[in-house]
Amino acid sequence: MVQQLQLSIGDKELKELNDALEHGVSPELRRMLNSLPAADVAHLLESSPPKLRSLLWRLIDQEQEGDVLQELGDEVRQFFLDRMNIAELKAITEGQDVDDVADLLQQLPGTITRRVLDSMDSQDRHRVEAVLSYPEDTAGGLMNTDTITVRASNTVDVVLRYLRRHDKIPEMTDSLLVVNRRDEYIGSLPLTTLLTTAPSASVYEVMQTDITPIPADTEDTQVAQIFERQDLVSAPVIDNKGKLLGRITIDDVVDVIREEAEHSMMSMAGLDDDEDTFAPVFKTARRRAIWLGINLITAFIAASVIGMFQTTIDKVVALAVLMPIVAGMGGNAGGQALTLVIRGMALGQISSTNLRWLLSRELAVGFMNGLLWAALVALIAYLWFNDPIISLVIGCAMVINLTAAVIVGASLPVILKSMNIDPSLAGTIILTTISDVLGFFSFLGLATLFYA
Amino acid sequence: MVQQLQLSIGDKELKELNDALEHGVSPELRRMLNSLPAADVAHLLESSPPKLRSLLWRLIDQEQEGDVLQELGDEVRQFFLDRMNIAELKAITEGQDVDDVADLLQQLPGTITRRVLDSMDSQDRHRVEAVLSYPEDTAGGLMNTDTITVRASNTVDVVLRYLRRHDKIPEMTDSLLVVNRRDEYIGSLPLTTLLTTAPSASVYEVMQTDITPIPADTEDTQVAQIFERQDLVSAPVIDNKGKLLGRITIDDVVDVIREEAEHSMMSMAGLDDDEDTFAPVFKTARRRAIWLGINLITAFIAASVIGMFQTTIDKVVALAVLMPIVAGMGGNAGGQALTLVIRGMALGQISSTNLRWLLSRELAVGFMNGLLWAALVALIAYLWFNDPIISLVIGCAMVINLTAAVIVGASLPVILKSMNIDPSLAGTIILTTISDVLGFFSFLGLATLFYA
Repeated sequence: MVQQLQLSIGDKELKELNDALEHGVSPELRRMLNSLPAADVAHLLESSPPKLRSLLWRLIDQEQEGDVLQELGDEVRQFFLDRMNIAELKAITEGQDVDDVADLLQQLPGTITRRVLDSMDSQDRHRVEAVLSYPEDTAGGLMNTDTITVRASNTVDVVLRYLRRHDKIPEMTDSLLVVNRRDEYIGSLPLTTLLTTAPSASVYEVMQTDITPIPADTEDTQVAQIFERQDLVSAPVIDNKGKLLGRITIDDVVDVIREEAEHSMMSMAGLDDDEDTFAPVFKTARRRAIWLGINLITAFIAASVIGMFQTTIDKVVALAVLMPIVAGMGGNAGGQALTLVIRGMALGQISSTNLRWLLSRELAVGFMNGLLWAALVALIAYLWFNDPIISLVIGCAMVINLTAAVIVGASLPVILKSMNIDPSLAGTIILTTISDVLGFFSFLGLATLFYA
Repeated sequence: MVQQLQLSIGDKELKELNDALEHGVSPELRRMLNSLPAADVAHLLESSPPKLRSLLWRLIDQEQEGDVLQELGDEVRQFFLDRMNIAELKAITEGQDVDDVADLLQQLPGTITRRVLDSMDSQDRHRVEAVLSYPEDTAGGLMNTDTITVRASNTVDVVLRYLRRHDKIPEMTDSLLVVNRRDEYIGSLPLTTLLTTAPSASVYEVMQTDITPIPADTEDTQVAQIFERQDLVSAPVIDNKGKLLGRITIDDVVDVIREEAEHSMMSMAGLDDDEDTFAPVFKTARRRAIWLGINLITAFIAASVIGMFQTTIDKVVALAVLMPIVAGMGGNAGGQALTLVIRGMALGQISSTNLRWLLSRELAVGFMNGLLWAALVALIAYLWFNDPIISLVIGCAMVINLTAAVIVGASLPVILKSMNIDPSLAGTIILTTISDVLGFFSFLGLATLFYA
């Protein structure tokens, strides 16, 4: 599947907007922007360089601001939130889902969150506070409190009449939730069941009890796995006493899945998963500088290993020519093992029972590929420098380094994880350091022995 | 968000299974396995080394095989499909959704697909053939044909009575689809609307017309964007004449989103997005060997650049010590730009209107970080080797290489994409080659000038 420079709704609109903006801001432009769905406006903002972004924001009608903010990534959203006063913040939380309001408030400094909460009516405040009491990355933080609950003793007919008194049923409602008198979750009543069973049946008879409610402290990545494996549209959330707190809907889970999957790729390059593609120059430079600084330390460690063997290199300059091959191939082989295991861990596939098998396979694969490419590199080195010793030395070093790098790559994520360090963030740097140090050390060390 | 070695349902069961298997296969074990949901069995299979995997498969009841196959990744699924005969293949397609059957058949050789199709009854065959006529990665390939359609002229009451004649409504049905007499899609009737409006209203009055139907040839990644931006549970699919063909449901879209997001990370390490974590040794070794072979070519290109400057290195051996720093830092800086742009392209954020801004920002960021780290490296090099020339040379080379690598990293994905080459697959290799070649060439070339 090849990725695409998609000319989606946003891109076409962005082109038109850009053209329009060159002729100044017109009322038509403002109308056009505010007629777009909030998600498209958010996409436009995220696809715009800083100046255009601020200009576009000023064109958005105040009523639409809240919806647009919901659709923005954390970093871009933060930018606009930082520039709002309490009255504006209060205005944008109105009419939003409880989980979305909680998301916004979590991005604000504590004192401001307090003041926005105080300005709400007490019912809304209690709802938002209930969600805020759970960390953002748990089921409790993802949930919404807009559930429709019914009692098991009711008949389907009573439920149908009860629903008909509603003007609107909350979005993404595929099931009503059945609770007992202590508000404990006991089952789900799908709308499709309501529409196909006899009105005289009791809820108790037709409700589904095979959906396990999700405890509020479940991690969001685990919530995503539950939704994916069971193909859910929504799921009930309960507290540790079994009391129904709210429900999670698939739209919020989709965000978790995308963020989780992007997280690994972005952090392997030292980037934040929510990084703003169009962040301004200084912000970008400062953030990247940190990553480069850390990498510089590893580069100097590798250089100091080479420094130990200056006299050998001075004797046989061909060593300097060939040494990056040994280090680089180790890094590549290890990087494949590292990526595979990081993905496997994210999918929950790797546990103590199969880790040993995985490591033995990587050992075998690393050794076999080490032998294969060592033989070829040794041959080329011999033909190039016409020196059997350098050919032998590079061959041995390649086998050592490829095997070691693959084992390190495969075991590193598990070790880092057990130390509570994010494997995708630290893994690449540590792997590069090890494969460089070991590559240079084995190659130049062996050469020193043979040429001594 | 730190990724986790999750002890999900599958892991615990896997542990118990492993323990149980050590005491031989018992009837209880078989019962336990077949009582798990298909998705959990699939997860177990995907988390098992080859031998255990084959053993587990033999324990699965034949009726459950089809459901389990649906939940497997392509590579693991292919393994089991290859070992089935026509009768078995026919058996596992029974009772499956049309889109899922089409998925399975697409993995089989053409002649076998034909024979399985021929063994179906004509209604099923026509439905599957309709889906098969669209490529797997389009809306047509993702769609299901289990839609419930109604006419705009009906009243809500008629629709309600019509539904009540159904035993079951297809899963993930959140809306009925409204068509005219030519079967053209004209609107959607959400179940929630059915439950809250007056039974006397006509479908025409209450149906929603703001959901744009998806043409069957739309790419799956674009379908995912439409679902994400509009928070859909299902969406109608039409042909180029506006005729309703079927509907896409969020469960299939979630798979597209996960695959798309994983694709970039996996291919940047030369791995297939659907790669089996527990593939056997030889298969893994052979596949990895190809990637390493390609990387070896780039390593030799870099080595040959160093080879051009052997006499200079022979004169000043400190150059050999410092040269990997220049190349490595370029690779790191470029890798960040590359990853950011690949992600931005996948999200549809990058277009011709903002590309120029992005490239100028990267140029500025690369130059600033080049200057910063060049100054530090020059200082350290001076203190280490007490040689102002080497200090000057490495400083200049760092600025050149970091700036160039960042520009290459940011523009490469766009260039590759326009040539229809997958940027995440080819990007890293090309970037490494360029940053190595340029890093060694600028550093050793400048040194040759100064020390000549």
